[in-house]
Amino acid sequence: MQFSSSLLENAVNEFAKLPGIGKKTALRLVLHLLKMDASNVQGFGETLIRMRQEIKFCQRCYNIADADICSICSNSMRKQELICVVESIREVIAIESTQQYNGIYHVLGGIISPLDGIGPDQLNIEPLVSRVLKEHTQELIFALNPNIQGDTTIYYIQKKLQGSGVKVTTIARGIAFGGELEYADEMTLARSITNRLPVESYRTGK
Amino acid sequence: MQFSSSLLENAVNEFAKLPGIGKKTALRLVLHLLKMDASNVQGFGETLIRMRQEIKFCQRCYNIADADICSICSNSMRKQELICVVESIREVIAIESTQQYNGIYHVLGGIISPLDGIGPDQLNIEPLVSRVLKEHTQELIFALNPNIQGDTTIYYIQKKLQGSGVKVTTIARGIAFGGELEYADEMTLARSITNRLPVESYRTGK
Repeated sequence: MQFSSSLLENAVNEFAKLPGIGKKTALRLVLHLLKMDASNVQGFGETLIRMRQEIKFCQRCYNIADADICSICSNSMRKQELICVVESIREVIAIESTQQYNGIYHVLGGIISPLDGIGPDQLNIEPLVSRVLKEHTQELIFALNPNIQGDTTIYYIQKKLQGSGVKVTTIARGIAFGGELEYADEMTLARSITNRLPVESYRTGK
Repeated sequence: MQFSSSLLENAVNEFAKLPGIGKKTALRLVLHLLKMDASNVQGFGETLIRMRQEIKFCQRCYNIADADICSICSNSMRKQELICVVESIREVIAIESTQQYNGIYHVLGGIISPLDGIGPDQLNIEPLVSRVLKEHTQELIFALNPNIQGDTTIYYIQKKLQGSGVKVTTIARGIAFGGELEYADEMTLARSITNRLPVESYRTGK
C-alpha cells in the first residue's frame, strides 16, 4: 500500500500488528478514527495506555484486577472455600457471564505443554498448592479445555495435593445444548452415556 | 460479559466501538495489548492520538497529507495537468498501489446521493471546477464506483465544465483479469463488447 501521509501509514501499521487485523482492515479502522471527534480518539488512545500501565494481577488468584485483590476474591458473598482453576482470564469472563458460579478462581496463566516448552514452574501452580493448603479449600473445580495438556495439568496438580483431603472435580463433558447427537464425536458421546444423570437433576440443573 | 476490572472493561468497550469489531474480538485485542510491552502500547495509543490531531487535508486535492500540500501534488515528476477524480482517499491508496498512474488527484469526499441527503454542496466539487479552470488541466479521469450515484456525479461535474475544453474520461469497465465470462453480469459483458480493443493494445497495455 502506498500512503501519502506518514502519520496515516504509522497508524495503519500499528493496527496491523494486532492479531487477525491485516492492512486493509487496519486502514478501515484508521479511516473510521479520522471521522471521529479528536477528543474521542484521544480518549481511545489514553484508555489503552492507562489500561496497560495500571492494570494489576490479583495477588491471590492472578485474575486481572484494578487493585491488589480482585473484585471476585474480595467479594464476601462468594464461597471462599470453592476454587475454580482456569487457564486464563478468558475463561473467568466466560464463566462469570453464566452468572451460575458462586466460588472464586485461580488463573494458571497457561497449561503444562512440554512441546511448547511450558513446564509447571512457568505457571501459577505452586501458588495454587500453597493457597489450597493455607486457605483450607474444600473443592477444586478444574475448568480446563479437554485435551492432553489439560489432563496432564489436572494430573500434576492432583498429585501435588495428594493427602490434603481437598475434593478435586472437573466440569462435565457431554453433548452441548442444541447439539445434534449424530454429529457428536465418539469420545464425547461415549462419556456422556457413561456419566449419565437422573432425569430429575437434568431438569432442575442441580 | 462480566469483567473483574473496569480498566479492562473500558478498553474492551473502546475497541468494540470500531466498525466490524464485536466484544469478543475486542477482548482478544485487549488481551494481546496486555501481553505487549507497556512502551509499545504507549506507542500505539500515542500514534493514534497524534494521527488524529496532526493529520491535514491537502489544500489542493483534499487527499490526506502531513503538510498543507500532499506529497503527490508537490511531486514535480507527476503530470500536473492530469487529474484523477475519486470518491475518497481509499481509491487514492488503491490507484497509487498499482504504480501505473503518473498524474495527480482530486478527492471529492463522497458522491452525489440525494437519498442519503448528500448534494453537490457537501462535496469538494466547487474547488475542483475552479481548480481545473485555474490550473489549465487537460484531462479529468473519473475513477468512481460504477453505480447511479457515480454516474450522476460525473454528469454534474461534466456540465459544470462545459465549454472549458477539458477532456473528461472514465476508467475502463470490463471483465476483470482472472474473471470468468459466464459469471459476468450482462451490463459489464455488453459494455466490454461495445468498447472492444485492438489485440495489440491489449497485449502491450498502451
